[in-house]
Amino acid sequence: MPLQFATRLDNVETSAIRELFKLLGKPGIISFAGGFPDSAMFDVEGLREASQAALRDEPGGALQYGATEGYDPLRAQLAGFMKSKGVRDIDPQGLIVTTGSQQALDLLGKTMISPGDKVIVEGPTFLATIQCFRLYGADLVSAPIDADGVQVDRLEELIRAHKPKFVYLIPTFGNPSGALLNLERRRRILDLAVKYQTLIVEDDPYGDLYFGEAPPPSILALSADVPGSREWIAHCGSMSKVLSPGLRVGWMVAQPELLAKATMCKQFSDAHTSTFAQATAAQYLKSGRMPATLANVRRVYAERAATMGRALKRELGDAIEFTQPQGGLFFWARLTGAGGRVKDAGEFAKRAIEKGVAFVPGAPFYAKDADPSTLRLSFATADVAKIEEGVGRLGEAVK
Amino acid sequence: MPLQFATRLDNVETSAIRELFKLLGKPGIISFAGGFPDSAMFDVEGLREASQAALRDEPGGALQYGATEGYDPLRAQLAGFMKSKGVRDIDPQGLIVTTGSQQALDLLGKTMISPGDKVIVEGPTFLATIQCFRLYGADLVSAPIDADGVQVDRLEELIRAHKPKFVYLIPTFGNPSGALLNLERRRRILDLAVKYQTLIVEDDPYGDLYFGEAPPPSILALSADVPGSREWIAHCGSMSKVLSPGLRVGWMVAQPELLAKATMCKQFSDAHTSTFAQATAAQYLKSGRMPATLANVRRVYAERAATMGRALKRELGDAIEFTQPQGGLFFWARLTGAGGRVKDAGEFAKRAIEKGVAFVPGAPFYAKDADPSTLRLSFATADVAKIEEGVGRLGEAVK
Repeated sequence: MPLQFATRLDNVETSAIRELFKLLGKPGIISFAGGFPDSAMFDVEGLREASQAALRDEPGGALQYGATEGYDPLRAQLAGFMKSKGVRDIDPQGLIVTTGSQQALDLLGKTMISPGDKVIVEGPTFLATIQCFRLYGADLVSAPIDADGVQVDRLEELIRAHKPKFVYLIPTFGNPSGALLNLERRRRILDLAVKYQTLIVEDDPYGDLYFGEAPPPSILALSADVPGSREWIAHCGSMSKVLSPGLRVGWMVAQPELLAKATMCKQFSDAHTSTFAQATAAQYLKSGRMPATLANVRRVYAERAATMGRALKRELGDAIEFTQPQGGLFFWARLTGAGGRVKDAGEFAKRAIEKGVAFVPGAPFYAKDADPSTLRLSFATADVAKIEEGVGRLGEAVK
Repeated sequence: MPLQFATRLDNVETSAIRELFKLLGKPGIISFAGGFPDSAMFDVEGLREASQAALRDEPGGALQYGATEGYDPLRAQLAGFMKSKGVRDIDPQGLIVTTGSQQALDLLGKTMISPGDKVIVEGPTFLATIQCFRLYGADLVSAPIDADGVQVDRLEELIRAHKPKFVYLIPTFGNPSGALLNLERRRRILDLAVKYQTLIVEDDPYGDLYFGEAPPPSILALSADVPGSREWIAHCGSMSKVLSPGLRVGWMVAQPELLAKATMCKQFSDAHTSTFAQATAAQYLKSGRMPATLANVRRVYAERAATMGRALKRELGDAIEFTQPQGGLFFWARLTGAGGRVKDAGEFAKRAIEKGVAFVPGAPFYAKDADPSTLRLSFATADVAKIEEGVGRLGEAVK
């Protein structure tokens, strides 16, 4: 008799992307498939100093069990960081530290979702969010987006029709969409939160990675202008894209009752986030190196994004359409099939691998009603020369 | 309208222990209440060197996203560590790294427990296990224990009656019981696993903390002698009690299908355990300092345990009964009420706090049928002089 697993596992499938990733080991492949930052940009020296300072200044705190809510010096630094990004009314007790922002999503699922509950997500949205919420039994509803983010009129209809447990958005340089929710829509979403008393989850791992002018303030920051809205906003932040994913340091801002329940759930998930990683992150933020680190990653990714955009236009022409991203890590594109060229992104991905370049087809990013002509291209980990060469190969594959 | 939380939260209550812990801040309190190791024994210098080596030798690996299964050099070190403890048939792919062994419990719950499923635990058992499994909807059944661990005849009856999804045991120096499952019972449990095709979860955070001769081999190690039993054993290990809880590095050994499902669940729980912490732990194990560290903590805790045992006999006499622990962090004791003295551990805890000493009443450690006369005393974090003084205060409080 084999093991009988929990019924919740029936709600998730092994990812199509996983199969693709196995092919990435092929020698000479240029990969636009990943969703991670470039290791070459990590401030190793700054993190080395920060970890040393953590062990020197408070070895007990950095190595012992810690509070489930997070290491207090880090909570203080993170509150300061959020303030520097326009969130006026925040104190260290207003957030908890999570083991990456992935854990914030898991805690939201554990805390909020009963089997069968509706949750609205963007179509497309982050793949691991879809699976994470489904493991808790969520019935996902997909809200359409465009280059300005989620379409708010449609979102309102869906909230009215489905009375969701919450709405999950990546408003700033979304994954995979790269879309940037505009200011007017952000304000309207805050109105919807209050009008329908619906929790809005703002996942914001990419907001610091802008290339030109800064994006509009986060929904959390804007909530100060909309009376009664703050209690309906949960905001997830992360050090992963700007400092180091390996630390697994994320955080969640929410109203006190939700934070208390999430903390209780976290106690039984992993007790607390690594205090060594938390103390290292706290020392890093305290060291004052963060602004220069952010300026550096913005500059490098901006150059790569510009290169990829130019190359895509030149090499693929009207076979593809996309909006040039203003930040984040991704291009989101649609194959047009113009001139009888390939229109199915799965088929295109196979041909591209044969030519020595990889990307991720867009279909798995949809909870429902996938568009099979979409694809995601990351410009984060290949340098400018590799981007030119890789997009050249895409140009060959699309023919 | 307030937020509507998930129904699974109805299965857990806020812990009585939490309320007690708030009193521990009182000045001058000597605490036997904690469940953590002594920070003063952390090998800070060894961990400092290990973290430096991690950032020097492979900064990308230590700071970038990593495989959900764990950082390969750490998996190799942990497989070697398990081999050194008598587990013959293990390779690095036979285990996954977890964010502390608490996460291994969470992943077992997520992977195995459907709402309403029966799970057998020891009575008493680790408090956070009870709550962790209940969050996944487990209906817990409590198997009685004595100083030699779980009573196997009773366990067999319960397995037959309840057909549990799995049996959860802390066989070696249990928390809170301090009990040591004897060799004969370990062998019988392996027979039961095969006979009833029932998964046995062996949680083993304390096995390295023995004071005299080494305890019997783990159930996992013994499974090599019982054909067909290995696939029914899941074993959870931890660096928390011997090296540092703050790293949050634990691991789980299990059959491939269970590991694969747990890995999928972990992907959506926290993506992976901090690679920085994993690389640090890997370098530490590689450095060869672990045997000396283990010898040191064994020596210090042995002395403290001996001191506490002598002092309890001298100061509380026949008001209390207990078995002297042969390892771990805890005394488990029962108030006898002899001579009309206090018999309720909750009442005793209140009086003890007034006298300036804290411990944890035993009742919350039972999933069912709590014995209100029991209590747990940790000897790990107070030095010998404090133990003498604290137990003296207990002697006053028991009168």
